[in-house]
Amino acid sequence: MAEIISLSKHNADFNDSIKNLTALCKEDLHSINTLILEKLDSSVPLIQEIGKYLILSGGKRLRPLLTTACFHITNKEKDENLNYIGLAAAVEFIHAATLLHDDVVDLSKDRRGNLTANEVWGNKTSVLVGDFLFSRSFQLMTKYGSMKSLKILSDTSVIISEGEVLEISNDKNLEMNEDTYFQVIKGKTASLFSAACQVGGLSGGAKENQHQAFKSFGTNFGMAFQLIDDAIDYSSNSKTMGKNVGDDFKEGKITLPIILAYGRSNNKEKKFLEKVIKKLNDSSESFNLTKDLLKKYNCIEDTIIRANHFADVAIDSLSIFQNNQYKNALIELIQTSVKRLY
Amino acid sequence: MAEIISLSKHNADFNDSIKNLTALCKEDLHSINTLILEKLDSSVPLIQEIGKYLILSGGKRLRPLLTTACFHITNKEKDENLNYIGLAAAVEFIHAATLLHDDVVDLSKDRRGNLTANEVWGNKTSVLVGDFLFSRSFQLMTKYGSMKSLKILSDTSVIISEGEVLEISNDKNLEMNEDTYFQVIKGKTASLFSAACQVGGLSGGAKENQHQAFKSFGTNFGMAFQLIDDAIDYSSNSKTMGKNVGDDFKEGKITLPIILAYGRSNNKEKKFLEKVIKKLNDSSESFNLTKDLLKKYNCIEDTIIRANHFADVAIDSLSIFQNNQYKNALIELIQTSVKRLY
Repeated sequence: MAEIISLSKHNADFNDSIKNLTALCKEDLHSINTLILEKLDSSVPLIQEIGKYLILSGGKRLRPLLTTACFHITNKEKDENLNYIGLAAAVEFIHAATLLHDDVVDLSKDRRGNLTANEVWGNKTSVLVGDFLFSRSFQLMTKYGSMKSLKILSDTSVIISEGEVLEISNDKNLEMNEDTYFQVIKGKTASLFSAACQVGGLSGGAKENQHQAFKSFGTNFGMAFQLIDDAIDYSSNSKTMGKNVGDDFKEGKITLPIILAYGRSNNKEKKFLEKVIKKLNDSSESFNLTKDLLKKYNCIEDTIIRANHFADVAIDSLSIFQNNQYKNALIELIQTSVKRLY
Repeated sequence: MAEIISLSKHNADFNDSIKNLTALCKEDLHSINTLILEKLDSSVPLIQEIGKYLILSGGKRLRPLLTTACFHITNKEKDENLNYIGLAAAVEFIHAATLLHDDVVDLSKDRRGNLTANEVWGNKTSVLVGDFLFSRSFQLMTKYGSMKSLKILSDTSVIISEGEVLEISNDKNLEMNEDTYFQVIKGKTASLFSAACQVGGLSGGAKENQHQAFKSFGTNFGMAFQLIDDAIDYSSNSKTMGKNVGDDFKEGKITLPIILAYGRSNNKEKKFLEKVIKKLNDSSESFNLTKDLLKKYNCIEDTIIRANHFADVAIDSLSIFQNNQYKNALIELIQTSVKRLY
């Protein structure tokens, strides 16, 4: 576990990978940001205010970057079709809407070091502005998407909300099995990664086998990314790419490290975990005892091994594409993303 | 005000109008209900449960009826295109999603005599299942809608959420002016009525002038309907078509009768209204004193007069269509809807 406690040479690598991809997609990202800003315009000032607070607060734009990169991997004709810009913005709006609603559902107070919108403006406003952002994303995809992209994005929205409801249905359920948990994170995280890649690829003219490759790439990248996020929550650093350590624990959230630990624990340890998860005992002593259990049963290492499995599948799915700078940037992004903890 | 206190011969007339239209559209409504039921299916049991609780709890299906009637008003060719069924279901899903989120925002405990979903399953679940229903509606419209219908419905979703945020931005603002209030109800109620009519008409092959007529009809009907709902809240009956009297008052909601009363009140009365609205004083004494003020300044009558203005515009907008049973049923529906209070 020593590597987990020290960071962050590899975390810096992940940041570098993001920066590298951002630089490659600089012009596109500028267009996407301009469109996002334009679409945050509303006659209702509160919407603008919250939208900007949320969307312009320095997120990585990871999903729009995926859309853009996948577009460029397939698009050889340098045509003038800029639909992928609109679709990337639509994906970011869906993401922003789910963040707003997630923070209401999780009663979160802090995101990326800033107060959450629900802390500043209240839950009611967050619910309604989330609906606005969600509606805006549909407006964007209606304008810029082919029927196929529309279907992908509307299906994805259904899958995201099913994942979220499945998660809340298993609230504090320490006996949730790993497959159910994979279904949850496939819904709430991986499906939008996948959609982002698919619509980018389709805008670039992806053929069916290429489309399937992007779908697999995005899904598996999303799975890996979420699992590493889960592991980071039990790392010993206060911040890793904007995620606060201990947040999941404080909220009594069931993530893979905890599922593994509970399954491997003896009766006494199981009772302890039940107590801390169900009673929301978030004292630092409980947190440290929980981390001791995770260490005893190799739960962080095994979570990382699972993440690497998905990352490997993701990387291999890109093998049908010829090497180019966008493909290489995506591969580097995944490789560093699963090393964020070391 | 005596007519307001006694009901409900005319309320029965509204029920009869709904029954009449329901009978006319019986077969379509059956198809719509079957499709709704099918689309409430989810691998996540909680979604099915709440969806059914909400959608199958005996609503009037007013919006799908509008879609169906407007389809039949324009469709002369008896073609086999059943897209309007899917679009009617999509409209009902949007409606259901907004009800779920509204009840969370308003902290409502009761709807149509049943506990609200947020009371039964909690706010978190209601937010997420609302997102599911909303996403399902987009899936449906993507499957059944033309590009024009898709644009109308996605634009409408934006307008609905803008209306809702505008309303919450003016929470307890007794000085909200009437035009701002009209903008609120145009967003939160009239826009979906209008979209329901438009997509029905377009599915039936409406030409541009017919499309504009449906748009105007739906919008103005929605305005009239909401204003009468506002007035009913201050009537003396415990229930009128599922709406509980005094709900708006209890929630400190600003509606047209209160806006009119506040504007017309003297300083002492203004202070009283500020107290009851801002401090949520919902004692029956305060309610009765408020109703006395509404009576003193003719606020209910004037709200009804405003509603009749919109109803008249709605009825006239149908004049470009030849008389038929669907058109007549819609006209009767509006005429009785604005008489629900007498």
